[in-house]
Amino acid sequence: MIPKSHPRYKSLKTRKLLERGVRDGITSLNGLIAHGRGEAFDYLLGEKTHDFARKAIKAAAAMLLLAKRPVISVNGNTAMLVPKELVLLAKLLGAPLEVNLFHTSYERLQKIKKHLEQHGGKNILLPSKRCRIAHLDSPRKYVNPDGIFKADVVFVPLEDGDRAEALIKNGKNVITVDLNPLSRTSQKATVTIVDNIARVMPLLITAVRNLKNDDARKVHAISKIDNKKYLLKALKEITLHVK
Amino acid sequence: MIPKSHPRYKSLKTRKLLERGVRDGITSLNGLIAHGRGEAFDYLLGEKTHDFARKAIKAAAAMLLLAKRPVISVNGNTAMLVPKELVLLAKLLGAPLEVNLFHTSYERLQKIKKHLEQHGGKNILLPSKRCRIAHLDSPRKYVNPDGIFKADVVFVPLEDGDRAEALIKNGKNVITVDLNPLSRTSQKATVTIVDNIARVMPLLITAVRNLKNDDARKVHAISKIDNKKYLLKALKEITLHVK
Repeated sequence: MIPKSHPRYKSLKTRKLLERGVRDGITSLNGLIAHGRGEAFDYLLGEKTHDFARKAIKAAAAMLLLAKRPVISVNGNTAMLVPKELVLLAKLLGAPLEVNLFHTSYERLQKIKKHLEQHGGKNILLPSKRCRIAHLDSPRKYVNPDGIFKADVVFVPLEDGDRAEALIKNGKNVITVDLNPLSRTSQKATVTIVDNIARVMPLLITAVRNLKNDDARKVHAISKIDNKKYLLKALKEITLHVK
Repeated sequence: MIPKSHPRYKSLKTRKLLERGVRDGITSLNGLIAHGRGEAFDYLLGEKTHDFARKAIKAAAAMLLLAKRPVISVNGNTAMLVPKELVLLAKLLGAPLEVNLFHTSYERLQKIKKHLEQHGGKNILLPSKRCRIAHLDSPRKYVNPDGIFKADVVFVPLEDGDRAEALIKNGKNVITVDLNPLSRTSQKATVTIVDNIARVMPLLITAVRNLKNDDARKVHAISKIDNKKYLLKALKEITLHVK
């Protein structure tokens, strides 16, 4: 047990959660390394939600609400870190959760599906071998015909660059959460939330609730999207921190 | 198998090595996360050995050669990443290798010892429950009475801040390798080599060979140590990269 008074309590608790994810066959070993990269950038960003992230969150909420077929893509890290929040977001949006893994296996897909169901998730979609997106040459190209295949907006937090880019090339609007503003995912996404997924999810849920019944504000929020500016501000924040 | 032509070949190979380390019971899950943090900083440093690292390597070589009782501290990550190099450095210096783990267990200590022996290591030291250093309140306080306990210079690559600080408070000169110039380890060490351990080890071995028989140059190299400057230059490099 980590005492709540520990100055690194949140960060240590998150690590423990992902380590349990590895033991339970949900998180991959590569997922742990990816989490470490995120930790470094979170540290350089002062481990807080900045204004550029709040703006991106609002834009993301508006995009997800205005989408005809929004889909939430789940991997082994997000399944462990924010399962309840993913399920709640899906419910609020009437959007499916679709599991898609970098290091895929039938077993891991099933385990993640079950894990989300244990947190209240319903109709969890899995990729189908009979349905694929173009511009991607790994098992991640497989998608669900009723999910990402038809989606107009995909929320893909903690995604890798190849897949984010392929989704864009397939005509999807892509919202991502990525602590590294220099990553290919960050650079390619329609909207990048440069922040920690654990801090983002509650804020995104609140933003969805706030905007839900206000079409004018949704459209306004989308018209204000300036992803390059969000990324530049994140880089500036890192520079300030290092100095 | 990762093709050698892959632009991220080295980085992917390193990950595979550490994943094997986890499966073999040598690397801890936390070691994977720590590696991810290092990857992020390596990326921000352009994944190359900078001049400040070369200077620190030369100073480290001189310190290790002039030490009366140098010791090389090994953990689960360094054992997997550079076992041959650690063994060769120990041989060149006539210094023992001593295993010390953040997440310790009798089993892991034995596995790492065996792993180093398989790479030619001899007389590998392990911590003893009857011998400890002051100023540290975790199992890492235990050291070997013929190793770190008596050492005047300790080479502790990829170390955590608490232990690096405790070693300093116990009057040791501490040389570390750490990709994060802001870490407590980097800040506290006598000499910090801000670079990737895989690039550092061959350079450190060459530096030891070059300085071995030249006492005047050894003393000169030590007199030039300016760790604050090395760290500031590393930070400057990161800032440049981000811009």
